[in-house]
Amino acid sequence: MFRFLTAGESHGPGLTVIVEGVPAGVSLTEEYIATQLARRQRGYGRGGRMKIESDFAEIRGGVRLGETLGSPIAMWIENKDFANWTEAMAIAPPEGQVDRKANTRVVPGHADFPGALKYMAHDMRNVLERSSARETAARVAAGAVARRFLEELSISLHSQVVSIGEVEADVSLDADWDAVEASEARAADPATGEKFIAAIDAAKDARTTIGGVFQVVAKGVPVGLGSHIQWDRKLDGRIAQAMMSVNAVKGVEIGRGFANTRRPGRDVHDVVVPDPSDPRRFARRSNEAGGIEGGMSNGEPIVAYVAIKPIATMTDPLPSVDINTGEVMEAPYHRSDICQVPPACVIGEAMMALVLAHAALEKFGGDHINETRRNLAGYIASHQEFGGGAAAPGGE
Amino acid sequence: MFRFLTAGESHGPGLTVIVEGVPAGVSLTEEYIATQLARRQRGYGRGGRMKIESDFAEIRGGVRLGETLGSPIAMWIENKDFANWTEAMAIAPPEGQVDRKANTRVVPGHADFPGALKYMAHDMRNVLERSSARETAARVAAGAVARRFLEELSISLHSQVVSIGEVEADVSLDADWDAVEASEARAADPATGEKFIAAIDAAKDARTTIGGVFQVVAKGVPVGLGSHIQWDRKLDGRIAQAMMSVNAVKGVEIGRGFANTRRPGRDVHDVVVPDPSDPRRFARRSNEAGGIEGGMSNGEPIVAYVAIKPIATMTDPLPSVDINTGEVMEAPYHRSDICQVPPACVIGEAMMALVLAHAALEKFGGDHINETRRNLAGYIASHQEFGGGAAAPGGE
Amino acid sequence: MFRFLTAGESHGPGLTVIVEGVPAGVSLTEEYIATQLARRQRGYGRGGRMKIESDFAEIRGGVRLGETLGSPIAMWIENKDFANWTEAMAIAPPEGQVDRKANTRVVPGHADFPGALKYMAHDMRNVLERSSARETAARVAAGAVARRFLEELSISLHSQVVSIGEVEADVSLDADWDAVEASEARAADPATGEKFIAAIDAAKDARTTIGGVFQVVAKGVPVGLGSHIQWDRKLDGRIAQAMMSVNAVKGVEIGRGFANTRRPGRDVHDVVVPDPSDPRRFARRSNEAGGIEGGMSNGEPIVAYVAIKPIATMTDPLPSVDINTGEVMEAPYHRSDICQVPPACVIGEAMMALVLAHAALEKFGGDHINETRRNLAGYIASHQEFGGGAAAPGGE
Amino acid sequence: MFRFLTAGESHGPGLTVIVEGVPAGVSLTEEYIATQLARRQRGYGRGGRMKIESDFAEIRGGVRLGETLGSPIAMWIENKDFANWTEAMAIAPPEGQVDRKANTRVVPGHADFPGALKYMAHDMRNVLERSSARETAARVAAGAVARRFLEELSISLHSQVVSIGEVEADVSLDADWDAVEASEARAADPATGEKFIAAIDAAKDARTTIGGVFQVVAKGVPVGLGSHIQWDRKLDGRIAQAMMSVNAVKGVEIGRGFANTRRPGRDVHDVVVPDPSDPRRFARRSNEAGGIEGGMSNGEPIVAYVAIKPIATMTDPLPSVDINTGEVMEAPYHRSDICQVPPACVIGEAMMALVLAHAALEKFGGDHINETRRNLAGYIASHQEFGGGAAAPGGE
Repeated sequence: MFRFLTAGESHGPGLTVIVEGVPAGVSLTEEYIATQLARRQRGYGRGGRMKIESDFAEIRGGVRLGETLGSPIAMWIENKDFANWTEAMAIAPPEGQVDRKANTRVVPGHADFPGALKYMAHDMRNVLERSSARETAARVAAGAVARRFLEELSISLHSQVVSIGEVEADVSLDADWDAVEASEARAADPATGEKFIAAIDAAKDARTTIGGVFQVVAKGVPVGLGSHIQWDRKLDGRIAQAMMSVNAVKGVEIGRGFANTRRPGRDVHDVVVPDPSDPRRFARRSNEAGGIEGGMSNGEPIVAYVAIKPIATMTDPLPSVDINTGEVMEAPYHRSDICQVPPACVIGEAMMALVLAHAALEKFGGDHINETRRNLAGYIASHQEFGGGAAAPGGE
Repeated sequence: MFRFLTAGESHGPGLTVIVEGVPAGVSLTEEYIATQLARRQRGYGRGGRMKIESDFAEIRGGVRLGETLGSPIAMWIENKDFANWTEAMAIAPPEGQVDRKANTRVVPGHADFPGALKYMAHDMRNVLERSSARETAARVAAGAVARRFLEELSISLHSQVVSIGEVEADVSLDADWDAVEASEARAADPATGEKFIAAIDAAKDARTTIGGVFQVVAKGVPVGLGSHIQWDRKLDGRIAQAMMSVNAVKGVEIGRGFANTRRPGRDVHDVVVPDPSDPRRFARRSNEAGGIEGGMSNGEPIVAYVAIKPIATMTDPLPSVDINTGEVMEAPYHRSDICQVPPACVIGEAMMALVLAHAALEKFGGDHINETRRNLAGYIASHQEFGGGAAAPGGE
Repeated sequence: MFRFLTAGESHGPGLTVIVEGVPAGVSLTEEYIATQLARRQRGYGRGGRMKIESDFAEIRGGVRLGETLGSPIAMWIENKDFANWTEAMAIAPPEGQVDRKANTRVVPGHADFPGALKYMAHDMRNVLERSSARETAARVAAGAVARRFLEELSISLHSQVVSIGEVEADVSLDADWDAVEASEARAADPATGEKFIAAIDAAKDARTTIGGVFQVVAKGVPVGLGSHIQWDRKLDGRIAQAMMSVNAVKGVEIGRGFANTRRPGRDVHDVVVPDPSDPRRFARRSNEAGGIEGGMSNGEPIVAYVAIKPIATMTDPLPSVDINTGEVMEAPYHRSDICQVPPACVIGEAMMALVLAHAALEKFGGDHINETRRNLAGYIASHQEFGGGAAAPGGE
Repeated sequence: MFRFLTAGESHGPGLTVIVEGVPAGVSLTEEYIATQLARRQRGYGRGGRMKIESDFAEIRGGVRLGETLGSPIAMWIENKDFANWTEAMAIAPPEGQVDRKANTRVVPGHADFPGALKYMAHDMRNVLERSSARETAARVAAGAVARRFLEELSISLHSQVVSIGEVEADVSLDADWDAVEASEARAADPATGEKFIAAIDAAKDARTTIGGVFQVVAKGVPVGLGSHIQWDRKLDGRIAQAMMSVNAVKGVEIGRGFANTRRPGRDVHDVVVPDPSDPRRFARRSNEAGGIEGGMSNGEPIVAYVAIKPIATMTDPLPSVDINTGEVMEAPYHRSDICQVPPACVIGEAMMALVLAHAALEKFGGDHINETRRNLAGYIASHQEFGGGAAAPGGE
């Protein structure tokens, strides 16, 4: 059983993460996690806060002498900005009057309105502190743990920006991933990256915000993660939930799900053939299915496309209301980014990693990484029963 | 805690469903469920099996004298076709040789390939019997129970086809839903319905298959279902999982998630204003968010768009391989539909109903429907604390 | 993920069971399950109903040609007695007046009183139909599936009566289990069995009821099921929940937990020694821990003791009240048993099997029984790293 | 959905706790939690560590200005002793040789042996650091949050020691709870307290350890928490799991479950009568059921009895083996307590609080405490439908 929880408010003391279920014996360091947190903090279009804070997750449980113990892994990401919020975000009850920095003006598109009514929050700060994108730092830390575990199973994760507004990239699953990492806009092609940046700049100049689409790719996933046998075991469903749960996400595809509705059946199914380089093995002519058939990984790269809406707070705010008085007024402008798509890629990778780690542990079990790997290896070897003695693809 | 499980193979004795968590005191009849099952069985483009079977779910637990008891609701949907499969799908071990009707040729796009390797199934019938779309009948039965419960909370569900292949409808949340129900293609506009049918016919003539997009709308959902506080409580994430878990679904949006990535932030957030018909209440100028902000329902209709891929089995099959020998051969053609989009609408409604029932019970609790309704009413009344004494919208 | 749900009322059409998570390739027949159901129906002190019905669970999903498919296993146990209840327990709403056989008089000790108030049931039949011990037939069917799976891992289960009222047996983990099965009172020693029967007869003559204690033993459990790392993973906690969830159970011990509180620490911990028969292996001098240390199986037999209260309905009923009027009157006498301890043994075995199957699948994974067994074998072999190259005990 | 996770090793940097699901608007301070933590640290028979550390849980999320936000509550309990363990328990990989303070000698009765084999831990410190009773501090912190919430519903919790070794108290549900709190041995009667202390002293003198039994009582629990409808919803089962999951617990009863197996049915069921002080209400003549019938609270105090085994490490250690070499040697003596029963009471209260908070939220829902309380009040008022217009008991 793999599970994780996060806690903490955007301007509170910090973020707490518990990740449970990783086997013992996996090397894991704070530096490794910091590398992933830094990837989230890069990206063109990010606002001021990213410059204030360089996130660092301290490991506070579950790791000893550089290796996981099998026990729950606790992490703590201090909010350096809390120093400015010790009054408004104090844990303790106030002794006298405090400056609550109360939020009473609704930002349409945020959790403000439904959160106020659900939680009876007359100060919507009580809601938005938790619904803030700050929480995604905790997810990236959790995802880094999952990613480290997946590396032990030879599974790797990548992501790139597919579009910003109306500007589209020509993406490939065999992108130059180093180039992507080097790009502020997470584009493999520098010319495309420049167009992305121009689109973000244009939105800024227009005092609006801009969204886009990104792609997450998982390679080396063995065939057979997830299952067709019950609705909530399907791997695609679990990926869809994980992605849609990220702030600002409004759409998820496995493969190019929407575009493929326009093509004939003949063109969107991935023909199985003998592997040209080894006729005793199977291969695919295409990967329109995005690596998942019948709710299970099929040995091809898993490919998800994720739609990110434009950010809701703008320097030229939308009209709005005061939640308590009903008075019409402008929505507030919180210090904010213009475009979340490049950093959202990294969050998407984290969520993919968490789903795959969960699914891999369900299938392979194991309490020490050697046990999990031994079980995986035995499974892969069992594929030789198929295809006339050939090993079918998956995980190699 | 609301939960449901389904069981049963496509050509086995039948489908079993357990739905647990519905409060006591809800009227529920087999006829009500049959009406929903019949909706799934209609729809242009369906193949032969729909004509064989008229599904009927017998209630076998959890209901007495026409009312739910609060105990788990069991349903049984007999497979009338089982009579033809008593040998190949026998439960008991065979005494001699049997005609297994074994499937060894891979259908690309189905669960066949990953399922064979995952479950060591040299006869892929062991996989495809469960991964078949037949299982969605069980989901519609489960969803009918959820739907009946939601009606008690004044929540209603609709669906319509948005596109078939390249043919698009101009859909509205205020569609003439009776017209939709009357349409074989689930189109409110008869002319569009004819175009949909023409597209399906053309696919059939071309010996291929065709996909599309549908929309599910939930009206009357009170503000505040789901939550922003943890990744797996977000209502949009849970809807995404539920939809993506349906056979042939490859994409999910809340609102028009992908198209909205192309529009400026200013245009995709839903301005809150005093309700023109009652200035003490709030209203929205639009519903681009699809009724969900911050992972919570916001009082507007919930709107999901779902992409359905073209069916994988075709009268002119794709090339494929034998899973056991590796030999190259044509994929098999199972008796099948040309287009699943119209019936998938009904399955999508069922999944939406199941998610909303779960979320409503989490928020309102209650073991008798009167208790759940009393809790809901008290909550709605509490909104009068906001907006200057106005009741905010939600559920009325 | 292993899980199971049951549904169905005591006098309704029947009981429905879904068991999910058993790997493919396990032989399973209705006869095997029937054998377990029959064990539950034996036992001295059982009332009339057991003579009416010989339970039979039809498999209706998840099994083909005598082997599990990996998909959810559905079972149906028809209630033969339903023929006498088609009016009072009808599913459909009544057309006119019906004889509801309403229960309005509270039986103290049953679910009647809390169930009436919780579910707003003015006819407590709505509650007691589900809270009846009849539901345990469904658990035994589910447990039979788990047991069959555990046999594939060389895990076996036994149970015996430890005491009836004040009569105590001298139980051993190496009891003659065939003698236990042959005994109406589930006693290995015939003389003890006669004393048990005499105690039950005496209770009957006194127009009262009688309880007792039973023991469940699981042998061959590999070391390391369950985990110390989080409260809800501890194997002993999960066994305790499973046992306490059975009707009439009011106490659970792992080993002789209560009696051992009276002994010095020196005497209740199980010394580890080199195995006298093979000095390269470990053995224990005793098993006071009941096979669980730190929430994990330790390779010794798992031993649970379970306390069963005397049955609540008596031929000479207790005083009580009418739930609707408050009027004082006698509690009703439902046809009932005198003593549930012997059949409860079998239910206890079923619950133990379900917990162990769950825990084994968490640790070893696997979607075909060959995979689960291969993973288990690899794990057992890994113990040779310990004890100076000796294989430590567990599962052999 | 209420849930909690803990993380952290005994000699690591500290313990991390996340408690999720508490509604907004509940007053909660670090001082309140500290009071509960201090209760755990008192108690005769505790060893040296309790003197080193005075536990303090810092709240780091989910609380603002003294009130819960509805978001997950994070707590951090620093291990002051970590300063002495920065080398052996370092998170980072060592640069050179470190003093691992490795544990290779098995303590029978601890997690050492099964944990070593399960997690492939050649240094059993990797296991015992997490299986240590230190983790129970985190549970008490989590339980304090639950307790604070339950106070808002007028539910209170108490505990007392029932026996130490062979010395038994004469316990009452109406004990002088202040006297219990004042007693080092958690005995209401000072003379009994002295006998308890004498028993502990005698065990110490004999260089052994001693166990006992404690009682947890929850008062004010409304009728109808938990449910009879499915095995895993039964309140008694959930309490049993929670209690059995505590270190050193080997037995759980609801009411005096084991002793009551020796009494006739007539004497162990709790007769319902009109309340003598208000004939329109119901009352019970006794509470042998321990407040739970049919898996539901019945309005009487919930009473659990819990058996604690004697501590496994002794100043005069048992013989044992080295896990890696198999060599026979003495078990190690870790600095330890003589008797855990008095502090275990407080842990038992915490676990009871966590189970009841979960069950109350399932039944009453609510995202702000006012909503939960309003729902509870409406439910209690609904009981007036029963008993001839009388309000049935429960929660008042």
